[in-house]
Amino acid sequence: MCAARSLLLLSSSRLHGSNYLEHARGQLEELFRAKNVKTVLFVPYALPDHDKYTQLVRDALQPWGYNVEGLHTKPNHSLALTEAQAIFVGGGNTFVLLSKLYELQLVDLIRQLVLERGLTYVGSSAGTNVATRSIHTTNDMPVAQPPTFEALGLVPFNINPHYLDPELNSQHKGETRDERLSEFVAYHKRPVLGLREGTSLSVQGDQAKLLGCRNAKLFKADGTTVEYEPEADLSFLLKS
Amino acid sequence: MCAARSLLLLSSSRLHGSNYLEHARGQLEELFRAKNVKTVLFVPYALPDHDKYTQLVRDALQPWGYNVEGLHTKPNHSLALTEAQAIFVGGGNTFVLLSKLYELQLVDLIRQLVLERGLTYVGSSAGTNVATRSIHTTNDMPVAQPPTFEALGLVPFNINPHYLDPELNSQHKGETRDERLSEFVAYHKRPVLGLREGTSLSVQGDQAKLLGCRNAKLFKADGTTVEYEPEADLSFLLKS
Ligand SMILES: [Ca+2]
Ligand SMILES: [Ca+2]
Repeated sequence: MCAARSLLLLSSSRLHGSNYLEHARGQLEELFRAKNVKTVLFVPYALPDHDKYTQLVRDALQPWGYNVEGLHTKPNHSLALTEAQAIFVGGGNTFVLLSKLYELQLVDLIRQLVLERGLTYVGSSAGTNVATRSIHTTNDMPVAQPPTFEALGLVPFNINPHYLDPELNSQHKGETRDERLSEFVAYHKRPVLGLREGTSLSVQGDQAKLLGCRNAKLFKADGTTVEYEPEADLSFLLKS
Repeated sequence: MCAARSLLLLSSSRLHGSNYLEHARGQLEELFRAKNVKTVLFVPYALPDHDKYTQLVRDALQPWGYNVEGLHTKPNHSLALTEAQAIFVGGGNTFVLLSKLYELQLVDLIRQLVLERGLTYVGSSAGTNVATRSIHTTNDMPVAQPPTFEALGLVPFNINPHYLDPELNSQHKGETRDERLSEFVAYHKRPVLGLREGTSLSVQGDQAKLLGCRNAKLFKADGTTVEYEPEADLSFLLKS
């Protein structure tokens, strides 16, 4: 149905002990090679300083042979997106990011370019949240209010980036991540893929695969959970 | 200006090692004695099972000599609120709670009863979030979407309940609580009071005081922070 779709959804842009995007270098290079991507259009809206954020991404990707341009520097956003080889939507605050995408009226355009025209989409953290059906499972503080929590819908389920296992001996009485995700499942009866830091979801057409060095935890619509190992085939989620 | 106002805003309903509300018993008893409260109207909407939640609160308060009734059992919510001696708004999910208050059209009524008629308001966690000007500083997952993040506005600033100091040696790359609250301050230029578990804010008329056994951390509008000790006078925040 979405034969053109090509996504790489990262849990996080950093992993403890390594540089920005370094843990995902192999995943990015493989994807960009397959799609013949030389220039990446960066979407910096999840953080306040767009120039600085774009430079951070450029400093990471340029040594690997990729040009990086900032969407915010383009006089015509729609044209820049339409002509892009690939976009990378960086993390920060999910509410701020989605608010900005709606404000700039880019949601429908990006959805169409990715699902129908095969625009390669890389997202990290907040950029992964907005790629899914909704931002209901972000970890971020709701510092901005988008017109709706419905997002790009590039995949029909939810993801929780930076998924964190409950701390066994915590004395804190706030909810654990598992309790928060169970709240979501209880209200929505829909699955959430918990992506631990260092893992990514690759979606090529109707095939989805877990990448990285750790398991992912799926919170199923029926309230149960199941762990998946690296390289696991998660294509069934695309039919959810 | 709000001479009638009488609030007790708890960071959490539980403290590690003690029973439900036990850590705040002295604070509740002092407030209820001063206001001659015998029956508490409980607002259970932040959790899905309203009967069970009301029973939990009844089991805690009844041994101390208070009757507890559930707002959800009342055929006429407005009448029940108007006749109440005190309301207790329990924690759970802040987005679910605020959505329900708007759905039932209770936001304006509760605001008016508390600010103009002196209805005693006790909130815990999500119940504390909705008492403030907005829910932008909740820790909860946005599992439901209220029509607006603006809340009861019983105080003109924001509170972060369950405030948690950053873990020094964490390898997790998601934002710390301080980073999240700094994001809010950067976007809104407004103060947030970080209430650690075990602490509460008492507001009587135009006087605000920190209660409990730990400090509170104020994130000021200018981006700096300051710690306040138990019993500190925080009345200046009511003018923010
Ligand atoms: Ca974030
Ligand atoms: Ca909560």
